[in-house]
This record gives sequence, C-alpha cells and structure tokens, in this order.
Amino acid sequence: MTANVQRSLAAEFLGTALLLATVVGSGIMGERLAGGNAAIALLANSLATAGALFVLISVFAPISGAHFNPLVSAAERFAGRQCTRLTLAYVAMQGAGALVGVLIAHAMFDLPPLQASAKVRTGMAQWIAEGVASFGLLLVIGLSAKESAAAVAARVACYIGAAYWFTASTSFANPAVTLARAFTDTFAGIRLADAPMFMVAQGIGAALGVWVARRLSPT
Amino acid sequence: MTANVQRSLAAEFLGTALLLATVVGSGIMGERLAGGNAAIALLANSLATAGALFVLISVFAPISGAHFNPLVSAAERFAGRQCTRLTLAYVAMQGAGALVGVLIAHAMFDLPPLQASAKVRTGMAQWIAEGVASFGLLLVIGLSAKESAAAVAARVACYIGAAYWFTASTSFANPAVTLARAFTDTFAGIRLADAPMFMVAQGIGAALGVWVARRLSPT
Amino acid sequence: MTANVQRSLAAEFLGTALLLATVVGSGIMGERLAGGNAAIALLANSLATAGALFVLISVFAPISGAHFNPLVSAAERFAGRQCTRLTLAYVAMQGAGALVGVLIAHAMFDLPPLQASAKVRTGMAQWIAEGVASFGLLLVIGLSAKESAAAVAARVACYIGAAYWFTASTSFANPAVTLARAFTDTFAGIRLADAPMFMVAQGIGAALGVWVARRLSPT
Amino acid sequence: MTANVQRSLAAEFLGTALLLATVVGSGIMGERLAGGNAAIALLANSLATAGALFVLISVFAPISGAHFNPLVSAAERFAGRQCTRLTLAYVAMQGAGALVGVLIAHAMFDLPPLQASAKVRTGMAQWIAEGVASFGLLLVIGLSAKESAAAVAARVACYIGAAYWFTASTSFANPAVTLARAFTDTFAGIRLADAPMFMVAQGIGAALGVWVARRLSPT
Repeated sequence: MTANVQRSLAAEFLGTALLLATVVGSGIMGERLAGGNAAIALLANSLATAGALFVLISVFAPISGAHFNPLVSAAERFAGRQCTRLTLAYVAMQGAGALVGVLIAHAMFDLPPLQASAKVRTGMAQWIAEGVASFGLLLVIGLSAKESAAAVAARVACYIGAAYWFTASTSFANPAVTLARAFTDTFAGIRLADAPMFMVAQGIGAALGVWVARRLSPT
Repeated sequence: MTANVQRSLAAEFLGTALLLATVVGSGIMGERLAGGNAAIALLANSLATAGALFVLISVFAPISGAHFNPLVSAAERFAGRQCTRLTLAYVAMQGAGALVGVLIAHAMFDLPPLQASAKVRTGMAQWIAEGVASFGLLLVIGLSAKESAAAVAARVACYIGAAYWFTASTSFANPAVTLARAFTDTFAGIRLADAPMFMVAQGIGAALGVWVARRLSPT
Repeated sequence: MTANVQRSLAAEFLGTALLLATVVGSGIMGERLAGGNAAIALLANSLATAGALFVLISVFAPISGAHFNPLVSAAERFAGRQCTRLTLAYVAMQGAGALVGVLIAHAMFDLPPLQASAKVRTGMAQWIAEGVASFGLLLVIGLSAKESAAAVAARVACYIGAAYWFTASTSFANPAVTLARAFTDTFAGIRLADAPMFMVAQGIGAALGVWVARRLSPT
Repeated sequence: MTANVQRSLAAEFLGTALLLATVVGSGIMGERLAGGNAAIALLANSLATAGALFVLISVFAPISGAHFNPLVSAAERFAGRQCTRLTLAYVAMQGAGALVGVLIAHAMFDLPPLQASAKVRTGMAQWIAEGVASFGLLLVIGLSAKESAAAVAARVACYIGAAYWFTASTSFANPAVTLARAFTDTFAGIRLADAPMFMVAQGIGAALGVWVARRLSPT
C-alpha cells in the first residue's frame, strides 16, 4: 500500500468520523437547548452539518477525494476512476469512521458509547424521500466533476443543508451514515431495523442520479 | 432538436422540479416542526430555498442557463439571446417541472398528490411586494450578465433568501412557481384565484427591472 | 454630468433604497411572524440584511462603488479618490434612496407611508455600540481597498450580519440609514430625537476606523 | 521592532479584541432577546462568531497571519515559520486583545467592565469536547497551509460555527479566548477555576491536530 493510498484511507476514516461527530453531536446539542421546538433543533443540526461538510470536503478533497459516502465511492468505481479494491477499502474506512464519529459525539456529551436507536423512520414516504435525497446528491456531484474542491464543497454543503428540510427523512443519503446513526438513541438516530430500507432507497436514488448526470453532461 | 437543446430542456425541467420540491417540502417540514412559530418555519424555508438555488444554478447554468423562471427566459428572449421557440419550450418545461416538483414534495411527506391551496394572498400590498421582488430579481440578473455561474448563483440565492423576508408576499417572483404553488395546500401555497394577479405584478416588476438594469449597465 | 456619473448616482439611490426596503421590510416580517420572540425576529432581520448587502454590493460596485453610506463616501473623499461635489451628490442620493426604501417597505406591508418612530435608542452604551460598529465597518472596508467587489461584498455582509448581534444597538453604522429608520415605527425604527447622537457616534467611530486601517495597511 | 512587526502585533491585538467583542456581545444579545430559549441564543451567537471570524481572518491575514489564538501561533512556531520571540509577543497581544474585547462588549451592553463568571464548565466530557474542537481546528488550519486568506477564513468560520454545536463545550478551542471569557458573567462565560483544564485539553487536542495534519499532508 503506497503512502498516498494510506493517506487517502486515513482521510476517509477521519473525515467521516468528524462528519458523524457533527451530525450526531449538533443534534444532541440542538435538542437539549431547543426546549422542545424541533424546528430550532433541526436548524442548528442542518447549519452545523452544512458548515462541517464545507470544511471537510475542502480540506480532504486533495487527499482522498473526500467521498465520506459509499454511494460516492461506488459512483467513482462505476465511472472507472477507481479500482474495486480501493473502493472497498474506502467503504470500510467510511463505515469504521462513521461509527467512531458516533462514539466521539457520545463521549463529548457524556452518553453511553453505543446505543440502540428507538427512532422509527419507515414507510414509503420516507423511502421516497431518501431516494430523492440521494438522487439529488449524486446528480450534483456528477455534474460537478470538473469543479474545484471549494466549489464542490460549497455545492454539497448547500445541497445537504437544504435537503435536511425538503425531504421528509432529513436526508441521510449515505449508507455509512445511516448505519452509524442506528447506534445513537438521540436526535439523529434511526432504528436499526429501518436502516436497510433506507440504504436500498439510497442506492436506487443514487443510481438514477448518476445516470441522469451522465445524460445531462455536455460531451 | 439537437442534443444540446434536449439537455437544456431537461435541465430546465429537472432544475425547476427540484426547486419546487425544496420550496414546498421545506415549507411543510418547517411548519410541522416549528410548533406554531411561523418565523421559524420561514427561516427554515428561506434558508433551504437559498441553498437549493445556489446549488441548482451552479450545476445547471452550464447546461441551460438555469432560468427555472419564465421571467428570466422572457428577458433572455427580449435581449435577443434566445429565439422565441426555445423560450416557449423553456417555459413549458419550467411549468411542467414546477408541477412535478410539487408532486414529489407531496409524495415525500405522504400527502395527496395535488391539492387546491386555500391560502389567501391578495391585495395591493401583496401585489406591490411581488412587483418589487421581481424587479429586484431581474435587476440583479441583468447586472450579472458577465459573471460566472457561481457568482450568479450566489447572488440569486442571497437575493431570494432575503426577499422571502423583506417582501410581504415572501417573494414568489416566478410565474411557474406561482402556478405550481396553487396546487399545494401547505405552508408555501397560494389560492389559485390569487395566482393571476401575482403573475401580472411579477411581469410588471420584471419588465421594470430589465429596463433599469439596461440603463445602469456600463456600455 | 456624464453618463457614468448619472449611472453612479442612480446606483447609489437604488442600492440604498433596496437596502432600506430589506432592513425595514424584513424587520416587519420578522416581528409579525416571530410570536413575540425578538431573537427570532432579529435572526431573520440580520440574515436578510446580510444577504441583501452581499447582492447589492456585488451588483452595484462596478457602477458606483456601492457605498450606500455617507461614512463610506466621506472616507473615499478623505482618501482623495473622489471630489467633494460628487461626494455630496452621493450622500444626497443615499439619503433620498433610504427614505424611498422605507416608503417601499411600508407599501409592501400595507402601512402608512411615513411614520414617526417611538423606539428609544439612547444612552452611552448605545453610542459606544454605534461607535464600535462604525469603527469596525470602516476598518474592514479600509483594509479591503484592493479586493474584488465579491470579496468586499462578502466581508461587509458578514460584518454587518455579525454586528447586528454583537453591538447593543444592532449596528446602524450609517447616517443615511439612521435618518430613514426614524420614519418607520416598526422593528427597525429609532426615535428621531435619538438619531443625531447615533450619527455623531458613527462619525467618531468611522474616523477612528479609517485612521487605524491606514496605519495597519502594508505600504 | 520593524514597522511590519508592529503592524502584526497591532493586528493580533485588534483582531482578537473584535473577536471577543463578537463572541461575548452576541452571546449577551442572544440571551437577552431569546426569551429563555438557549438554542436560539446559541444560533445567534454561533452565526455572529462565524461571520466575524470570516471577516477578521480575511482582513488581517495579509498583515499578521490572523492567528488570534495561541494554539495557532504555537503551531507556526513549531513548524519553524516564526521565531520564539515573535510567537510570545503574538500570544501576549492575543491575551491583551481578548480582555479588551470583553471590556468593549460590556461597555456596549452597559455591564460592569470585568466580572467573575459563575458558569461551571468542567468534567471529562467537556474536556474531551475541547480536545476534539482544538484537534479539528488545528487539523483544518494545518491542511490549509497553501490556501488563500479567503479560503482559510471560510474554512475556519464554518468549522467554528459548526463546532459551537457539535461539541458539548460550544468549542472555545483557544486559550486566550478561554481566559478572557472567565471575566464575563454572561452567556459566553466560564468559571475561572475551570479555565486551566480547558486550556490543557485544548493543548493536547491541538498538538494531535498538528501531528495528524502533518502526516496527512501530501509531500
């Protein structure tokens, strides 16, 4: 394994960990302070996530491409820009990083390290929402292939910040994030039993997004 | 129809659909969570709309110009940068996309696909507001003719985000959006009977905006 | 009067009018919707103002320099970049534009065109706040002399957005804005009798800001 | 002492003072207006701080590097880009500036100049939070060494804005800021007795961040 690959894998691990620490941590903080008003909590949660995404993508894009998301790594594989083995290593790092991010958030807020989420997120409407969210994310990324890291970072940050609100599911749009969020019984959690269908919906939406981006790209 | 034109029309359709999904979807989410505080709902609604506009204009501008708005397409026609036929096709795509965006938002939030809005938005003050909103939008776009897609995207996003608050009508400023919002009985809705006068006011304001932008442009 | 000067004066008039329409209009909207929570109203008011400032400075900077503020025009005069006559014309346009902006806001919200504000804003703490706000604004502008319009726009927007919160006076930092806000008895208003001392404090702070910026500038 | 060094020290003093005036001032304003909802107060506080950081770093980076933080100055010393003596002078200016910023905030809000904070911020979870916050900050800065001032400013602003929410401690991440905040008994305060452990945690996190940034940097 070359030094570059090592750095890439470390960047995917660390970036995903910090992303999850933000998603889960700001959800806890928002809910604790918002006095029962979930909109205020989600406002804090979405702004913090958007801010963190902008920074993390800006900083890690030159190292690993800043995927932090198996859907994005799969799309890179599909486009032939990355081999299967590296893609699998990326996904493993994303999964591990996401879990570690949840642990960090819990440690910072003095909560048990791993928890089983009781938050029900299921039903056709939620799945459509995840499909739309993932479709949009991969479409945006697919149409930004030639942009600078800063431009991609701003786009993804704005997209996810908006999608927290315009999708009924608050836009997970990321299987690694979805799995990790099953282990926190806080604002950002999802029941483990509901995670698989979220991932299926994400996969379908993402595939459609990749396909549309390819069709729309000027040749 | 060339492949470029096809892509342009698809971009207008898709971009307007995603814009409406954001406007309507984030309005529903904001109202559901805000516990009756309309300012918090509008804060979420305006921030999500601004974020989505930034992304959608950035991403689709190289393909179709990212109008998403018959007022903008008409101004392009008026400036001689686009033929009548393409302009009409753009407007048709915007209208269809806007309606589909409303359908998507309703599907994501488990609501009936099409609804008749009961929200009254009428009276001289509202019409002035729509006129001012559309004037400002076309002025900003008219004075940004030589800017990059990213600059235009940032300007329009900030403008509309602000105009949600500084106009009494929350700044529709877009006839396709106005018509589509008549078919959602949620936060972002407008009674169908009130839509025509909104469009008239938008047309007048936009025409004035185009005229002032032309007068102010350094030659 | 050359066409360029005419355009500059029109830009100062129009830009200041739209700025005031935003400041006053978003204050009215924020207060109406916020259900008595002034922090939520000010959040809306400050975000809308920051967004508008970014757009207006971006768009009008190539035409007039986008001062919209007698303090800025005076600093330009002081730096020898503008003659006295043009400076006076700028200030007149700013004052007239600010008043028209208030009229527009009132028309959009169905309120009497001109009102006498009853909002007391006086006392040493408020004056210090205005001095600090104006000091910071002119310092920021003074240290951005060689920056692009977009960079200045982003800096001023962020500065004023922050200053709405970190100063006790919500940062007027602009004599034309201060005078015009005396004629609205809404969220953004200030008692006419309190306006002169605000302006004095602004002048002192601004002068200090210009002086410090000059001392700090690399030669 | 050369004129350049004088300007650098003045910039560190002034920038840190304005940063603290923002942090403390917007905390006071947020708490006064938020009617007991701490999330709304923190939303105002975090947005104002992020806005101020963007402006202050943009403006002062060409003069002093815009550290405003002993952790950053120490990292610069450690990287060999700055001598020990200048680093100590920077830190002294940051400490003095931070205190003066607190005085300014109190003057603007008509409060006693110096106060002993009674706000308890202690315990392992808080220390982990400060460690994580400082780790992330130095990591972001370390990976941005070749970026423009504007890029660094945007990254740090977004990072700290997010970290206010995702860390349980609201992310002080700065020993000079921590010490100064012990002298305000308002929203942003920290009990003086709790400050030392915050600084220790910050130092450990920062050292780790510098080390990881170095390991991840493409050579």
